[in-house]
Amino acid sequence: METGSTPLTDSAVEDLDAHWRALNYLAAGQLYLRDNVLLTEHLRPEHIKPRLLGHWGTCPGLNLVYTHLNRVIGERDQDMVCVWGPGHGGPAVLAGAWLDGSYGDLVPDLGRDLAGMTRLFRQFSSPGGVPSHAAPQVPGSFHEGGELGYSLAHAYGAVLDNPGLVAACVIGDGEAETGPLAASWHANKFLDPVHDGAVLPILHLNGYKIANPTVAARLPEAELDALLRGFGHEPLYVTATLDSDPAAVHRELAAAFDLAMDRIAGFQRAAREDGDTRRPHWPVLVLRTPKGWTGPVEVDGLPVAGTWRSHQVPLAGVRENPEHLAELDRWLRSYLPQELFDEQGRPRPPVLACVPEGDRRLGAGPHANGGRLLRELPLPELSRFAVPVERPGGGRHEPTRVLGGLLRQLMDDTAERRDFRLVGPDETASNRLQEVYAATDKAWQDGVLETDEHLGRHGRVMEVLSEHLCQGWLEGYVLTGRHGLFSCYEAFAHIVASMAAQHVKWLGTARSVPWRAPVAGLNYLLTSHVWRQDHNGFSHQDPGFVDHVLNKSPDVVRVYLPPDANTLLCVADHVLRTRNVVNVVVAGKQPCFDWLGLEDARNHCARGAGIWPWAGTERPGTGPDVVLACAGDVPTEEVLAAASLLREHLPDLAVRVVNVVDMTRLMSREEHPHGMTEREFDALFTRDRPVIFAYHGYPWLIHRLTYRRAVHQQLHVRGYKEMGTTTTPFDMVVSNDLDRYRLVMDVIDRVPGLADRAAGLRQQMADVRHRHHRWIREHGTDLPEVTGWAWPG
Amino acid sequence: METGSTPLTDSAVEDLDAHWRALNYLAAGQLYLRDNVLLTEHLRPEHIKPRLLGHWGTCPGLNLVYTHLNRVIGERDQDMVCVWGPGHGGPAVLAGAWLDGSYGDLVPDLGRDLAGMTRLFRQFSSPGGVPSHAAPQVPGSFHEGGELGYSLAHAYGAVLDNPGLVAACVIGDGEAETGPLAASWHANKFLDPVHDGAVLPILHLNGYKIANPTVAARLPEAELDALLRGFGHEPLYVTATLDSDPAAVHRELAAAFDLAMDRIAGFQRAAREDGDTRRPHWPVLVLRTPKGWTGPVEVDGLPVAGTWRSHQVPLAGVRENPEHLAELDRWLRSYLPQELFDEQGRPRPPVLACVPEGDRRLGAGPHANGGRLLRELPLPELSRFAVPVERPGGGRHEPTRVLGGLLRQLMDDTAERRDFRLVGPDETASNRLQEVYAATDKAWQDGVLETDEHLGRHGRVMEVLSEHLCQGWLEGYVLTGRHGLFSCYEAFAHIVASMAAQHVKWLGTARSVPWRAPVAGLNYLLTSHVWRQDHNGFSHQDPGFVDHVLNKSPDVVRVYLPPDANTLLCVADHVLRTRNVVNVVVAGKQPCFDWLGLEDARNHCARGAGIWPWAGTERPGTGPDVVLACAGDVPTEEVLAAASLLREHLPDLAVRVVNVVDMTRLMSREEHPHGMTEREFDALFTRDRPVIFAYHGYPWLIHRLTYRRAVHQQLHVRGYKEMGTTTTPFDMVVSNDLDRYRLVMDVIDRVPGLADRAAGLRQQMADVRHRHHRWIREHGTDLPEVTGWAWPG
Repeated sequence: METGSTPLTDSAVEDLDAHWRALNYLAAGQLYLRDNVLLTEHLRPEHIKPRLLGHWGTCPGLNLVYTHLNRVIGERDQDMVCVWGPGHGGPAVLAGAWLDGSYGDLVPDLGRDLAGMTRLFRQFSSPGGVPSHAAPQVPGSFHEGGELGYSLAHAYGAVLDNPGLVAACVIGDGEAETGPLAASWHANKFLDPVHDGAVLPILHLNGYKIANPTVAARLPEAELDALLRGFGHEPLYVTATLDSDPAAVHRELAAAFDLAMDRIAGFQRAAREDGDTRRPHWPVLVLRTPKGWTGPVEVDGLPVAGTWRSHQVPLAGVRENPEHLAELDRWLRSYLPQELFDEQGRPRPPVLACVPEGDRRLGAGPHANGGRLLRELPLPELSRFAVPVERPGGGRHEPTRVLGGLLRQLMDDTAERRDFRLVGPDETASNRLQEVYAATDKAWQDGVLETDEHLGRHGRVMEVLSEHLCQGWLEGYVLTGRHGLFSCYEAFAHIVASMAAQHVKWLGTARSVPWRAPVAGLNYLLTSHVWRQDHNGFSHQDPGFVDHVLNKSPDVVRVYLPPDANTLLCVADHVLRTRNVVNVVVAGKQPCFDWLGLEDARNHCARGAGIWPWAGTERPGTGPDVVLACAGDVPTEEVLAAASLLREHLPDLAVRVVNVVDMTRLMSREEHPHGMTEREFDALFTRDRPVIFAYHGYPWLIHRLTYRRAVHQQLHVRGYKEMGTTTTPFDMVVSNDLDRYRLVMDVIDRVPGLADRAAGLRQQMADVRHRHHRWIREHGTDLPEVTGWAWPG
Repeated sequence: METGSTPLTDSAVEDLDAHWRALNYLAAGQLYLRDNVLLTEHLRPEHIKPRLLGHWGTCPGLNLVYTHLNRVIGERDQDMVCVWGPGHGGPAVLAGAWLDGSYGDLVPDLGRDLAGMTRLFRQFSSPGGVPSHAAPQVPGSFHEGGELGYSLAHAYGAVLDNPGLVAACVIGDGEAETGPLAASWHANKFLDPVHDGAVLPILHLNGYKIANPTVAARLPEAELDALLRGFGHEPLYVTATLDSDPAAVHRELAAAFDLAMDRIAGFQRAAREDGDTRRPHWPVLVLRTPKGWTGPVEVDGLPVAGTWRSHQVPLAGVRENPEHLAELDRWLRSYLPQELFDEQGRPRPPVLACVPEGDRRLGAGPHANGGRLLRELPLPELSRFAVPVERPGGGRHEPTRVLGGLLRQLMDDTAERRDFRLVGPDETASNRLQEVYAATDKAWQDGVLETDEHLGRHGRVMEVLSEHLCQGWLEGYVLTGRHGLFSCYEAFAHIVASMAAQHVKWLGTARSVPWRAPVAGLNYLLTSHVWRQDHNGFSHQDPGFVDHVLNKSPDVVRVYLPPDANTLLCVADHVLRTRNVVNVVVAGKQPCFDWLGLEDARNHCARGAGIWPWAGTERPGTGPDVVLACAGDVPTEEVLAAASLLREHLPDLAVRVVNVVDMTRLMSREEHPHGMTEREFDALFTRDRPVIFAYHGYPWLIHRLTYRRAVHQQLHVRGYKEMGTTTTPFDMVVSNDLDRYRLVMDVIDRVPGLADRAAGLRQQMADVRHRHHRWIREHGTDLPEVTGWAWPG
């Protein structure tokens, strides 16, 4: 073994153990105590919290890791974060941050004294206090761990483009059963040992989930070893049992950490200094400790420590049951609190011997409060990429391809800073963003063949066929102070629906934590969307991610549907400047009419929604007979086609065309910060005229967003109603009643007095639709009059 | 090796190769040809389809598997299904079903002749035809594969309780990168070799995804081998390159399949006859074939076969480019179609030599059309489990615990048939369904310790900490003709949002495929819900799964919110009888008032929504002054508490209480088959009185469901609005303005003329809420007057 570390002295072991015992005491204290926190007297019921909540089982193991990471950091002056996968072990992480003093630095009345300790205990899982997970309120955390599965992906996201950083990542053996975690093991195939830091996974086998043994803990040793080697790691094992001498475990664990850190340093040196291009077999630490170790061994005659019964609160009856109370008293005193803290609750020097200083402390590191490190992106001037538009609809471009130009430039301009990444499930080129490859490669560490294109060890495009891993990488990257964009087929964004919700929740809470600096927005580009998945069919057609996101905290969520290339540029430019939000941008990759020149696009996007006067037939001052509204590229084309039919056939009908880019503008000001006032809304949509709204997604979303508006009773929405299949693009809109002909019929049906006057036109429209149905069955292609259609304006 | 199989004769190899070439020809033909399907003349542009769609790259490998499975089935008279993970290789699966004659049996004009072949080619990816994936229209498929990740879980679901069945499962190396697939490898830890069949995973390494190499294909061989052994498998390798002689590959592959099948039979014999309880190291086949093998090697000077350029249509310009057309002609003739089919398009005998007969054919097996095997569940009489209710609100029970009694009985009554399973992510006991353990164990094949409880090799409760695996198992189980229930924390159902959507889409399509027999409903029990995750906090609070599901095809989706124990029993009894639907049941596990006796509950659930006259103060004939509506257990309690406050303080106010169990009843009849007519709806909710609706989830859902109703303008909804945290149950409802006091204030604010008359009461209500805010900050518990509240009726 190449470790140069010397074995620990006895006194160093004692100090480590003192730190660990202090953490265990502080963790257990948070579960139980509201008073007498130093046990200066024997416990009485009134010292106990009214509700006993929290998860003890995982804490002793997490505490052990916390203690030893402190040692590693201090010895090596190592920049480090830790991702605590079992985030419901919040008491452990809170204890660590209190004990290293970082908590008190951030929240003054949580200082390292009696008052601070009392407050630490009382706030835990109390109303108005802090939650039981490693939530945004927890110093040093950027991973809550409430929903399991994302720790390893977050850890990898954190170390990308952070060459000096090591992210330790505790993976619970429960979490190890989840799909996203299982997929994340292969993230090491994408880690660049030159420009990225390293991840040190710590597989924590404490044997049990809520009520079951775990798969990983019961694997035969040979299988577990093969599995981890198959994942590309070198496993290092440390095992503790209920009978273990903690001092021996400290020695073993310290040696394992030293070996792991030496290995990491060695691999990095080889790659950075010797030009070694082999993918390292990074170390993984397998740490077996009994669940609930050091807690009650038996309660009411049943085994507790080392079993699933330690999962939550091991002694549940302490307020009512004097035996339980006495047992708790014995348990807490077993940590020898008087040796650990003085009478003022201040940790004694040996307890703090292993704690590093300043920003090196796990609770204080800037990466875990990434906004501290965030720099504005050097966004290029949009005019360099904008498409020329001499008149609306005069040309066509693929919006995402145009965006690719901007992204390429951004990749070029961040080549040195390396703080922007593009992630996606093998779809960057399919989504027509491939111009970025002129500036950077796809990250890839394994073998490259002659026939491969754009693969490179140092690339900043991350492609893996796992939406979970993409999302996890980007979350970890953004939360540690960098920027990025996730491009994804629209339908498959649902795969990460729950991850998106958790990120929104994180941001929503983080906004109210005073010491958290704002981080960059998390940006989705949803393309290959519902209307243009006609070749992949029904399984690829789902516009509902937007509905999901709009259920969440309005402070955090934004949804944009740019209708053409230049508006997409403007929206992209905007979202890449946002902070503490989640932006969902839905845009097409197929050729699409260019409606707005760059300046018009800027103005339109700044307003978020507006009248397109050139598209309508309204005379100034009199107001429209009908409003044709649209949101999304395909609905916009259909609305404009309907407007041109109306102009041709009913020239005296006053038609107003309204396009919506920012969906949250439709909401009321009380519901969303972007919401329009009543006056603004009515100025666009009127209070009483029929509004035919062609929307990209599920139609009822528009009703939901606008149900408070005066005009709502007059609102008629067309959108996707699950009539998807493998067919042509135009048949998709016909099948869902979103086509131009149907929209004209809607206008005739809804505008008072038009039914008679325009009966012939209505029949004509119905006839085209019938012709379409016949044509497509016979020819398998779209009706020629539609495919050749051009905006006549 | 224990294989007793003899090597293949040359003639057998030739026959296999003929079958494989026929499949390749039929797959390529589907992508390109609309005419001249037997190549009786040289190809001309008019023989080519107008739109060239589909995925060629994966087809040759899938075809190879199809051919060899045929041989295995025939030789061993083996009951078999195949799950085609790369479902976008639809042309391969369609070709196989056409060639084995099962397609023609189901759809007569797809017979094995010239007309049938022409129709097979024309329908593929054409409007009104069949989609490009292994969709419900595809014989032998119960796994579409449009969204990747679920093949292996589906395969395991299929073989549970099917001891004679072997599910081959082709896993693409792209799909292997997804999280759900990665988690599914450990499904073998739950497979009972006695009562379950076997899964034979076939990891198909063709090297590339859409535009990238795959992780698995580029792993060093030793790592891949270690990985698969770590997953508990014995890997068997077969490798073909562009230079391989197909005959040699056939021999190798046949030997590997024989060995794998022998191993499976051996393990089953050991477990079933010799009582061997060791978990078998089941075989996994690693099949390397070049992507697009046998297709064009080079197109326009770029390599195609064996690269990612084979992914979709390798020759894209055949209609315009004569060279491409000639190359296509050469390519298709390379399969020697005249040797394969006679002039009438009938396959010649050698081609069919390996094809099994009748239901043994992969396209004809009953498991893949599971409704054919479905039996009604022996549901017990509910009165055995119902809680006695002498008067509404007279007692409390935990609804899910009561349901546990029914489930236990159902497990007992299906002990022999073994066609019912309960799945969940380690939460069965947490969700208080643990009475089932009196009837069956949790499935577990690895080591069992003394301290473990309810683990057993033959158990029918499936617990793994992966919602994806739970969902995949249940889908596979239900689609192959059995029954089940998925119990899950409400918030974490979002983890499988996309899987649920795909299943709904499958069922929506399957309903229109005449030969598909209806399968059992897929049932979710969402518990540990938003209002009772006060201890786990914000990350565990999300009622939005219902919103997601209700975006989908109304023919398929059902949502129930039973307000108490007996209504939950009635709803469970109903959903377990449904066919071809997805049922979402949201119910609490905490003690909850019993409102309805069993007969009342039956009647109420049969109506789906109804007036609770005993809870209101309406006098017959005059109609109410206000409607208090509720859906969900917690909102129901708050509404009844509000009603009792109103009865006490404003006895002359005519209050009507309406409870909704079936959410889709709120929709109009045109929108959902369960929707109420206008008359029915108005009879419950009136057309013009204020309606205060307390809803379990996001309030705007109620607006969306009811926006067409006359009373909609008078509707005021309270629900969850993301004001979640770690607090007390009552603080949760106060924080979201769903509490009884707020509801009374809403009534006062909305009923004309009440503002003045009830100003004092309103102030009183506001005062209680203020008192609550103070109390909880000081005591950390709920206001005593609330915690002790009892329905006075």
